[in-house]
Amino acid sequence: TTTYKICLLAGDGIGPEIIAEGVKVLNAVGAKYDTAFEYTDALIGGAAIDATDNPLPEATLDAARASDAVLLAAVGGPKWDTTDPAAPRPEQGLLGIRKELGLYTNLRPVQIFNALADASTLRPEIVDGVDMMIVRELTGGLYFGRRERFYDEPAAGVNGAPGQRAYDTLEYSEYEIERIARQAFEIARKRRGKVTSVDKANVLETSRLWREIVHRVHDADYADVELEDLLVDNTAMQLINRPADFDVVVTENMFGDILSDEAAQITGSLGMLASASLGDGAALYEPSHGSAPDIAGRGIANPLAQILSVEMMLRYSFGMGEAADDIRRAVTEVLDAGWRTGDIKDAETPADKVVGTAKMGDLVVEHL
Amino acid sequence: TTTYKICLLAGDGIGPEIIAEGVKVLNAVGAKYDTAFEYTDALIGGAAIDATDNPLPEATLDAARASDAVLLAAVGGPKWDTTDPAAPRPEQGLLGIRKELGLYTNLRPVQIFNALADASTLRPEIVDGVDMMIVRELTGGLYFGRRERFYDEPAAGVNGAPGQRAYDTLEYSEYEIERIARQAFEIARKRRGKVTSVDKANVLETSRLWREIVHRVHDADYADVELEDLLVDNTAMQLINRPADFDVVVTENMFGDILSDEAAQITGSLGMLASASLGDGAALYEPSHGSAPDIAGRGIANPLAQILSVEMMLRYSFGMGEAADDIRRAVTEVLDAGWRTGDIKDAETPADKVVGTAKMGDLVVEHL
Ligand SMILES: CC(C)[C@H](C(=O)O)[C@@H](O)C(=O)O
Ligand SMILES: CC(C)[C@H](C(=O)O)[C@@H](O)C(=O)O
Repeated sequence: TTTYKICLLAGDGIGPEIIAEGVKVLNAVGAKYDTAFEYTDALIGGAAIDATDNPLPEATLDAARASDAVLLAAVGGPKWDTTDPAAPRPEQGLLGIRKELGLYTNLRPVQIFNALADASTLRPEIVDGVDMMIVRELTGGLYFGRRERFYDEPAAGVNGAPGQRAYDTLEYSEYEIERIARQAFEIARKRRGKVTSVDKANVLETSRLWREIVHRVHDADYADVELEDLLVDNTAMQLINRPADFDVVVTENMFGDILSDEAAQITGSLGMLASASLGDGAALYEPSHGSAPDIAGRGIANPLAQILSVEMMLRYSFGMGEAADDIRRAVTEVLDAGWRTGDIKDAETPADKVVGTAKMGDLVVEHL
Repeated sequence: TTTYKICLLAGDGIGPEIIAEGVKVLNAVGAKYDTAFEYTDALIGGAAIDATDNPLPEATLDAARASDAVLLAAVGGPKWDTTDPAAPRPEQGLLGIRKELGLYTNLRPVQIFNALADASTLRPEIVDGVDMMIVRELTGGLYFGRRERFYDEPAAGVNGAPGQRAYDTLEYSEYEIERIARQAFEIARKRRGKVTSVDKANVLETSRLWREIVHRVHDADYADVELEDLLVDNTAMQLINRPADFDVVVTENMFGDILSDEAAQITGSLGMLASASLGDGAALYEPSHGSAPDIAGRGIANPLAQILSVEMMLRYSFGMGEAADDIRRAVTEVLDAGWRTGDIKDAETPADKVVGTAKMGDLVVEHL
């Protein structure tokens, strides 16, 4: 029996409810594939602020580093919203763990489950065949550059009066661009062989460096992969105009944040999309959606993105491709059988097919 | 007879073709409303680089400053694409004139013409009633912050070797946020009374300052306007999910660039959308689309966004609301009569209703 250690970060909002279903599925996979999963719970985000005043306690980092993979649910909520630069914020936990574990590659697959094709606000013929992988750089750029706010700067206020001024810094080094570009090209080789590199090279110096390095890596080692450059504003359009044309999309951190959510929404079922954050050590897996504080504690949240993040964990961290395929098949079957959580039901869903969080987890396990 | 001086900046690609139609319409309006328009042509963008090595010659700025309004077509093209930080780029002309004329408010109306409702890749019931105004801050943020590229920095290269590093700076002062917030609230009062302020306050210090100032202005002077905050990634989703819910959307420069193009694409007819850039002096009007180098010189480009930018000029710079309404009515009638340029035709358009650039301009003039 192989044993893998998994650090569980339930976080905030619906986090504890959905992560329980992820664990349920892991246990079922473990039994089927003679693998043992050992879990350590740790605090992150708002829950960690409430308990320790720190969105990312040292104990959490220790637990994550001692694990083979990290399963995160979601962080954040209005309770901890603030514009006070000095106050701790839940998101610092998420950003902190990405940085501390060196998780520079964020993979966000965007696919449509046939049973949910009607959920999209886009026309069916436009979303038909959508299958892209967004590769987002996750430890650089505006998220981690120097930032500051100054008070009482002369002329920063209205009519030349003193006032506040703030800045954030978008910074990239060659090695950061090169390693994420390599990831994108490697992934494209296992897919349809096309990479769209997104930047704003007509304005930003970091984008011009980005474009230069991406092309250098391409020409030297990946000339077999098709490479196109697309400006970020044009990409925001083309994702709506011809989403099925995209295969691998690689971009810097902030553009990736915006475009991956836009691409996710194109499917119409954000509750179905998982993500993987990879680095050189333990990787982190989480749903693409947030902590949904409005429905927290009611047992109605959709656990499928969390379950599909377990799928990605098996695939990328444990080399258990067969078990991963199994999960995907089980989820597909449950959907094909008509089962829905509230967020993915529609006018045609019979009332007795609408289930809660735990029941949806049970259904997936039954189909495994 | 009132006389207005207009500076014409044809720029690159389809620019010269479409601006001619804008002038045609201005002349027709002048005749009808007993107003004289005097034109001065000036160089900008790639055309200016070719002629003077400078994307924004001093003579162009002088001509713009001596005018009551500026009509721009489009700049840029692959001919001038470069990642060399030292080379002149067409976009510098556009960014330069925005900064030099102090055009800090960019207005991008997003509306659907009934005759073109089918052009959207979104479902008809989703785009029905879409009518928003994107208010983009245009002279601050990443576009105008300090940027640099360093060569041979130790450890910026792969495996700790020397390499390149680049940065851009996202900076905002209180007064810049306050003035654009006021614009948004004023505009909302003349519309449906709702402002969505978009930021990334869970990560960026500039966004936290943004949110603080927007709320201060709101609470002090515009408490009658409904105000909501939306994170930029969530906005990228909601624009696709429920576009008709948005009234006024206000945001910083880079987010505005991305979201306004996304919103424009939702209509499916980018060739129909105009924009106004306002400051304290002469304002600038231009189509939302680009220079379309692939179809330049063939007389087939859609001039309607350029013509609708003339509509905005009449409305905002010359107080000629009635003439502006006239243009909008004329364009609507031409579309309702079935006339189309290549970009807005569909499978049902009869071949004899597909017209070129000049003919489309003539049709609008006939309907004035
Ligand atoms: C919560 C937030 C800081 C985070 C981000 O912006 O990266 C989230 O939106 C995401 O995409 O994972
Ligand atoms: C051409 C480019 C510099 C410009 C911008 O990014 O502002 C354009 O995309 C726009 O939106 O007007």
